[in-house]
Amino acid sequence: MPDKPADQAERLHADAATKRPGGRTARTAQAVFDATIAELGEVGYAALRIETVAERAGVNRATIYRRWGDKPSLVAAAFTARQVEVSPPADTGDLFEDLLAFLREVRRGFDSPWIAALISETGPRTADNDGLRQVLDKIWPARFRLSREIFVRAVERGDLPAGVDPDFLVQAAAGPLYFRRLMLGRSLTDDFLRHTAALVIAGARQS
Amino acid sequence: MPDKPADQAERLHADAATKRPGGRTARTAQAVFDATIAELGEVGYAALRIETVAERAGVNRATIYRRWGDKPSLVAAAFTARQVEVSPPADTGDLFEDLLAFLREVRRGFDSPWIAALISETGPRTADNDGLRQVLDKIWPARFRLSREIFVRAVERGDLPAGVDPDFLVQAAAGPLYFRRLMLGRSLTDDFLRHTAALVIAGARQS
Repeated sequence: MPDKPADQAERLHADAATKRPGGRTARTAQAVFDATIAELGEVGYAALRIETVAERAGVNRATIYRRWGDKPSLVAAAFTARQVEVSPPADTGDLFEDLLAFLREVRRGFDSPWIAALISETGPRTADNDGLRQVLDKIWPARFRLSREIFVRAVERGDLPAGVDPDFLVQAAAGPLYFRRLMLGRSLTDDFLRHTAALVIAGARQS
Repeated sequence: MPDKPADQAERLHADAATKRPGGRTARTAQAVFDATIAELGEVGYAALRIETVAERAGVNRATIYRRWGDKPSLVAAAFTARQVEVSPPADTGDLFEDLLAFLREVRRGFDSPWIAALISETGPRTADNDGLRQVLDKIWPARFRLSREIFVRAVERGDLPAGVDPDFLVQAAAGPLYFRRLMLGRSLTDDFLRHTAALVIAGARQS
């Protein structure tokens, strides 16, 4: 969830607008988000220009600045709008299956050009590094709020001890995938995902 | 370990040369590696130019090309030469303490400007992306060979079941640190490192 209530209100407004396909405001938001995501996939975050997004979406640049403020806010809004299309984490009643579904979702992110662009540009020192950090700071809390539910539900079912830290477990489960893909350049096989899920669950049960 | 024996021979040669501080060849290697690492820390991998390294080291550019071939090989050689200064993983006889020492070593890497530069530029699409992938493909096997020993020794002591996969456990232990630092932008507290080490060990004992 964004830190500032204003951001959230803006996002909820944008979401609501997106869901009214008839409205002009909604069509504009949809076109701008589509253009933003297409640009992210093609040129990445650092090279993304609001001017190009405006041209691509067929809207006035001033419209984008007025409605979303700046580049980090625009990208975060586009990301969040796409995320609401993503279903909440699976609730199969089985911790291993839920966690495996989450890890497959993480893997899908790497296969998506625009998500991969955001992930991969996190570290380097570019002029836009601070902006990207702002984007991630808006995106991650929302993703965490969803994915930690997997562990919260497992505690409620008595599948995990009450003392576990769901936020920590999300990091423990997702981390190996990022490391393997970004640092080692190796593929995220289903076997690796299963191995990771099993280790995290077995470890959490002992804590 | 590098894939090609020729690379390894070259590296061993370079290492040996570095250790004869009296020789001219050794002094050249030292100056070139120092310059490479200083440049990495200042401008990062993508912007690093052999020409600038040569100027900084006070050697002829042709000397660098003749001895190290290209930029990925030079950076990998500089990295490897620095790595031999790093002590092998702690052998305290206690798996938790050994693993914690390794994770603190990983954390130190993030605090080192030139290692942080290599880590952070892994993802983005730059002209030099393939080159950096070559560097990492040379660096990681050597680091893995060292760090997996922690788990191999634990199996030998009977601290872990014989069926564990040391390579997998290195990824499971290091991954959460990379994710937390690069994606979440949060600090790597000692508490987080201990929590990670404990989870991986508890999980590995159940496998």
